[in-house]
Amino acid sequence: LVPLMSESKLNVDRAALEQLLQKRFFFTPSFGIYEGVKGLYDYGPTGTALQQNLINLWRQHFVIEEDMLEVDCAIITPSKVLETSGHVAKFADWMCRDTVSHDFRRADHLVEEVLEARLESDALARKMADVSLAGGAAADAGGKKGKKKGGAPAPTKLDDAVAEEYRNILAQIDNFDGDGLGELITKYDIRNPETGNAVTPPAAFNLMFESSIGPTGTLKGFLRPETAQGQFMNFSRLLEFNNQKMPFASAMVGRSFRNEISPRSGLLRVREFTMAEIEHYVDPLNKDHQRFEEVAGIKLPLLPGTVQLEGKTTPIQMTIGDAVEKGVVDNKTLGYFLGRIYLYLTAIGIKSEMLRFRQHLNNEMAHYACDCWDAEIKTTYGWIECVGCADRSAYDLRVHAAATKKKLCVRENLSEPRVFEKLECEPNSKVFGPRLKRAAKPVLEHLQTLPEETLEAVSAALAKDGKATVTLSGTAVDGDYEITPDMVTIERRTITEHVREYTPNVIEPSFGIGRILYALIEHSYSVRADDEQRAVLSFNAAVAPFKCLVLPLSGHASFEKPLRDAARRLRAVGVPARVDDAASASIGRRYARNDELGTPFAITVDFQTAQDGTVTLRERDTTKQIRGTLDEIVQLVKNLVNGEITWEVVLTKYELVNTAASENDA
Amino acid sequence: LVPLMSESKLNVDRAALEQLLQKRFFFTPSFGIYEGVKGLYDYGPTGTALQQNLINLWRQHFVIEEDMLEVDCAIITPSKVLETSGHVAKFADWMCRDTVSHDFRRADHLVEEVLEARLESDALARKMADVSLAGGAAADAGGKKGKKKGGAPAPTKLDDAVAEEYRNILAQIDNFDGDGLGELITKYDIRNPETGNAVTPPAAFNLMFESSIGPTGTLKGFLRPETAQGQFMNFSRLLEFNNQKMPFASAMVGRSFRNEISPRSGLLRVREFTMAEIEHYVDPLNKDHQRFEEVAGIKLPLLPGTVQLEGKTTPIQMTIGDAVEKGVVDNKTLGYFLGRIYLYLTAIGIKSEMLRFRQHLNNEMAHYACDCWDAEIKTTYGWIECVGCADRSAYDLRVHAAATKKKLCVRENLSEPRVFEKLECEPNSKVFGPRLKRAAKPVLEHLQTLPEETLEAVSAALAKDGKATVTLSGTAVDGDYEITPDMVTIERRTITEHVREYTPNVIEPSFGIGRILYALIEHSYSVRADDEQRAVLSFNAAVAPFKCLVLPLSGHASFEKPLRDAARRLRAVGVPARVDDAASASIGRRYARNDELGTPFAITVDFQTAQDGTVTLRERDTTKQIRGTLDEIVQLVKNLVNGEITWEVVLTKYELVNTAASENDA
Repeated sequence: LVPLMSESKLNVDRAALEQLLQKRFFFTPSFGIYEGVKGLYDYGPTGTALQQNLINLWRQHFVIEEDMLEVDCAIITPSKVLETSGHVAKFADWMCRDTVSHDFRRADHLVEEVLEARLESDALARKMADVSLAGGAAADAGGKKGKKKGGAPAPTKLDDAVAEEYRNILAQIDNFDGDGLGELITKYDIRNPETGNAVTPPAAFNLMFESSIGPTGTLKGFLRPETAQGQFMNFSRLLEFNNQKMPFASAMVGRSFRNEISPRSGLLRVREFTMAEIEHYVDPLNKDHQRFEEVAGIKLPLLPGTVQLEGKTTPIQMTIGDAVEKGVVDNKTLGYFLGRIYLYLTAIGIKSEMLRFRQHLNNEMAHYACDCWDAEIKTTYGWIECVGCADRSAYDLRVHAAATKKKLCVRENLSEPRVFEKLECEPNSKVFGPRLKRAAKPVLEHLQTLPEETLEAVSAALAKDGKATVTLSGTAVDGDYEITPDMVTIERRTITEHVREYTPNVIEPSFGIGRILYALIEHSYSVRADDEQRAVLSFNAAVAPFKCLVLPLSGHASFEKPLRDAARRLRAVGVPARVDDAASASIGRRYARNDELGTPFAITVDFQTAQDGTVTLRERDTTKQIRGTLDEIVQLVKNLVNGEITWEVVLTKYELVNTAASENDA
Repeated sequence: LVPLMSESKLNVDRAALEQLLQKRFFFTPSFGIYEGVKGLYDYGPTGTALQQNLINLWRQHFVIEEDMLEVDCAIITPSKVLETSGHVAKFADWMCRDTVSHDFRRADHLVEEVLEARLESDALARKMADVSLAGGAAADAGGKKGKKKGGAPAPTKLDDAVAEEYRNILAQIDNFDGDGLGELITKYDIRNPETGNAVTPPAAFNLMFESSIGPTGTLKGFLRPETAQGQFMNFSRLLEFNNQKMPFASAMVGRSFRNEISPRSGLLRVREFTMAEIEHYVDPLNKDHQRFEEVAGIKLPLLPGTVQLEGKTTPIQMTIGDAVEKGVVDNKTLGYFLGRIYLYLTAIGIKSEMLRFRQHLNNEMAHYACDCWDAEIKTTYGWIECVGCADRSAYDLRVHAAATKKKLCVRENLSEPRVFEKLECEPNSKVFGPRLKRAAKPVLEHLQTLPEETLEAVSAALAKDGKATVTLSGTAVDGDYEITPDMVTIERRTITEHVREYTPNVIEPSFGIGRILYALIEHSYSVRADDEQRAVLSFNAAVAPFKCLVLPLSGHASFEKPLRDAARRLRAVGVPARVDDAASASIGRRYARNDELGTPFAITVDFQTAQDGTVTLRERDTTKQIRGTLDEIVQLVKNLVNGEITWEVVLTKYELVNTAASENDA
């Protein structure tokens, strides 16, 4: 999260939006009737449908379209697996405690919050100074305004150099480790803003939820912090399922867990979340992608590490083709996925001008990654990482293979055998075994895995001194062993390999579904130009939780039958319809309610329906209505929902119905 | 799980099936490259697609069809919530330890396993005795066979009475609590069959996974044991979302967790599983269901508690209408859901003759349920509970309302006001407060919540003795307080109520998706009559993981283009197609592989395709093939997959292609 102080904020009244989201039950803090727990959320019917649509579209865009192998793995993970993966040692955030209240704060967020507040105060002070120069009366007004805000401290102007330092720190806040953050806290006297108390130096806090598996209490496990490990566990089976063909990808949609220190920002920082992750396995010697050309022309806003380290936050506009060619993005597969991510996000309704791709700085990179680009989306909370696209290299498969002594690699038949020379050591079995006894096997292993130069040195020693010494360590028979020329033959041989064996690299696009969902809601939110009280969520039909509302003009009994009929016919053509026959609410209020649910279309049954079988069709964003027979309108809604026709085209073909009365009837 | 010793087993070779499921990657033990953890499974691409199809059909059948409110709630649940729900105290199994090896065993399973083994041994002994009577030679053969089984103990005949006792116990094994199981263990000298050692008396083991939330280490939480609690937490919001209308249902699909003592039986007893649960809220005074008539005529195999307590396991065949009328099933809503469950299970492919509905016995009922019927499906493991349908009464909403002091109830406007008389106590504020001081409020609360007869007695005492005593306990001001006639007015008043307030009852159909999936696989499994090595999974098109395979007759280069073309056209009409161009495998082997994946249709591109643009279409179960133009066949596959035409009808319209060669080419 790189704060962009200079840019204008999103035009969203967050308090009003949050109220709407609660009222229309998109989501709500979990266990609200109890005290509740921070960082846990329940999705209501609206949020659940929206989330499901985002996942279905994701599956269509990635899994189906690219023939990925979707899996569904266990959440509970034994400690051993996560020790190997590095999560037990390194999956941690830096945490400070208030020295008096003992409250916990995440160290980087604390620094960020305090420095941002100081910069805001500085900006206000500078503005007031300007106004003050311009005229005394205005300055007074400014002063009064300041006081009205509940006795907030007077704005404090910073030295130009200090302000610049702060901005520089904030642009690379993710680059500081625990010590670095500790130094910032001391140097800038950063305190808990809620209490004014000093805080302890940052300490590491592991973010995994721990539990115990089975009745013995001795088998430690964690809730998975990512779905990736389950996919790596199954690498060999998946490769086999794919008939040994490379490259290929596995994918998983599921819950993951992070025991956040002090969760804030609603859905953006939670302890339990739905992820959709892809592990694309690729030959490390050839990271091209078959379909790269399809995305090469897409222009992306890129924010490479080099730019950030200069303290800048303005992205470079560049096509993916250029970015790969110029080395800004490392390889074609990584570039391909950045393009596919861009296409997915904009297709669901994320505004492209509020989307950027930011490269991770070295210290912020996860322990397993060698390069990583985040798709960040602009929200009222700032720029939020919603998709990570990491090159995990061969890290995970290598460490798991080493820990389990299982092969996790690809064997590729070479079209032409590879012929090369190699210095090899072979034992003379008559002498080698009897002389070294129990140590024979480990000594031979040691010799056969020596780097070529070292083996060369052993060979030279044997020739020159008539002996060489092998030192074993980490075995059951550690110690020095003397080797003599009669025990081994060391010579250069020609090797012909027909099979190449390698550990694939992994490119991992990883989607935070909850964050994307929240960002999409903000990008879809607006209020009517003529009435600030009337809010609209302009979801496109594919993602909208509900597609079409069916409602009667009023509670008149004659509307009952055509109403059911319309709903039934819509369902028959595959459009899930919701009926709102709450006759106690006026038609205008029901339209307004529906706009808040983001339902794009509404069919209204009115008095004319009984006479000529026609109904009206209302579109949410324009609030315009047309009239047609039920058959006609049902077919039209189906085509609109499937994207086979647009509302603009519909409007050119039908006469408008006068809707002023119903719209204002709220 | 009531074992049915007398019934014939399913005709499934489980070892062969398990091998197939591993090979075709339906599922596999999690973390297999490590030691693995019992009771955790990963689904591969085949199992994931199958599971997703079962869930989608479930959603269509229940959520969409009945307009239920689907939610998605947190998995991590604070301890308080589960203390209130009773899970912290009561969600436990009885566990024994081997007194020497200290292995853990679930007590009821241990008793079951040992008694079943004794009955099997008894049956064998009786059979051998019969054979022995019939002739000496045959008896010898039997004896040899017995010895061949790795020196198993000789069959032991039981007394008729003892065998009867065992059967009786097994028929109601779920009815024993810890003490009861302990008595059985002592009485029948039940030991750990793996070691022959005695076991400790049963002790309760709570099945919830525990963890700690946040950095303080003081907020205890559990992984949810069911999705239900999250739904109850949101009851008031859901009722509001439903415009206060009753009855209605919420639903959730998600992971739940049970820390099983010693998980066995593959997918049937696991520590982490996907559930689909419905909480249907209903007026306790009216448990009818609007759509009951739609299912009233369905005949179900019912096994009521009364029958089981007689030691019998033969279900009664009865229509749902009759069952409700005769009180076998308590009410129409419960009956309605049993019918809907039956329709769902048979629609996905569960064989109706291997499905029964068994009522829970009193001691086996979950602590929150007042009645419960399980849909049990017959598998090679016996009859397995796959869906529970419980009447949870008002238990959950009541306990949560009491613990949180929040109203969790329905307010219903009465069409006619309810007028009734009630004895009421009102304080004389001039005297009551000043005299009782701090105790005034609790004493008044005490008086106003007394049952009518007790208040009557207070009133009589005031009239007779000029005073009465109120004893407070559980308050901050416990003690005896004297009330005199001047302090209160107690009189009978006429009350007019316009609103009825009640706590709804909950009917809960709860589906174990993994169990259903496994049972369905067994019901779909068979081997070719002419070749036992060739297995088939006969999934119907709606649940089949993959719908249509596209493959070339051989690796000939000319097949490449029509192959891609066929796949593309199938996808365009909404049929996900898989291409199998592994030219190294013969066509017969690829058909066989596909039969094991359960893919119903296969389009083959052959040499004739280049000549006349035709392809063949093969159906999995019959292995019959027809030929037609690509356009024609693609349309046909679409209609077959959507259920708009059957293969039988297709066969009447097309000539058969001779396929003997390709089928045997394995």
